[in-house]
Amino acid sequence: LNKLAISKEIEEESYKIIDSLLKELKLPLGELAVVKRVVHATTDLDYSKELIFHPQAISNGLKAIYEKKNIITDVNMVRVGISNYEGEIICLIKEESVLIRALKLNITKASSAMREAKDLMEGGIVVIGNAPTALFEVCRMVENKEVKPALIVGVPVGFVGALESKEKLKSLSIPYITNQGRKGGSSVAVAIVNALLKLSRGENNV
Amino acid sequence: LNKLAISKEIEEESYKIIDSLLKELKLPLGELAVVKRVVHATTDLDYSKELIFHPQAISNGLKAIYEKKNIITDVNMVRVGISNYEGEIICLIKEESVLIRALKLNITKASSAMREAKDLMEGGIVVIGNAPTALFEVCRMVENKEVKPALIVGVPVGFVGALESKEKLKSLSIPYITNQGRKGGSSVAVAIVNALLKLSRGENNV
Repeated sequence: LNKLAISKEIEEESYKIIDSLLKELKLPLGELAVVKRVVHATTDLDYSKELIFHPQAISNGLKAIYEKKNIITDVNMVRVGISNYEGEIICLIKEESVLIRALKLNITKASSAMREAKDLMEGGIVVIGNAPTALFEVCRMVENKEVKPALIVGVPVGFVGALESKEKLKSLSIPYITNQGRKGGSSVAVAIVNALLKLSRGENNV
Repeated sequence: LNKLAISKEIEEESYKIIDSLLKELKLPLGELAVVKRVVHATTDLDYSKELIFHPQAISNGLKAIYEKKNIITDVNMVRVGISNYEGEIICLIKEESVLIRALKLNITKASSAMREAKDLMEGGIVVIGNAPTALFEVCRMVENKEVKPALIVGVPVGFVGALESKEKLKSLSIPYITNQGRKGGSSVAVAIVNALLKLSRGENNV
């Protein structure tokens, strides 16, 4: 793949600024790479204090990537933002069966899409960037031992349920990356996963 | 289209919280709808003070929507986030010709994609949620009278160029929606356009 010199320059300049702003931050290499990419994507320095990593999050995420396991996302915005992955990136929210189940059970489409993806999650990475209801549903399936992903990236955003769904995620014994508070969103989710992908290729991320 | 009761409830609860948080905010209906949707999508109240509207932004945006003009986006994350539009939503960043021009001229792919879309912009809405370089390029084309979109939604994010590209946009005599500062991003851009689409259908947005 050809690399654009200008894009590389802009990214390097951005990381220089981030390095100077976060020079006091001490974290393991993998976590630092994720934090910096989220700050790069959002310009929101709060994430340097608010991202929370399960101790096995980075290693489990990298293992899933090396093994080309599925990446399952809650919304298509997250799916299309993840780049340069050799495995499958899957979002089922637009499937007709997902809509039918959602209407029948009066659950959200995002939640229904998680149930639909149940058999695709084993050893993979589940990425929730939008819908608290999707994160609640994955947590429920993990608790019931219906699914066992390697890593859950849970950074839904919203005034309703986002905080609570992240608390639920942290209560589970499964590796996760999440954040404090009600912020988050597709761009944050994408930045976390793209940071892991760059790490897996040994590319500069910091 | 079937509507999910649960999603509607969550949205209504979210808007109740936003209404109570922003009860002092006085804005025309259209601008208020956009501000509230951005706050709903980000939970970031700063946007209630930082979004900036050209006086003709809402009316021109609605006109373009009624006429089903093209919506041109800088990145695919923005394209897939816009929902329920009867016109075309176009992002050319993955076209081979866009990459070839970018490499030849050493410009970013996002900037090259804007040039590629030149003949598609007349009377339409150009939406930049990610790349300052794309916004600079659209501004250049507007200044040179090469393009005349009805509205530019310019909320790129980043430490490098985002502020400057928004200053450039505000200096033009074309309707725009932008924000103060280096924040922004795909979710903000999508929220702005989806608010306009809901307004155009007379749906509750506030």
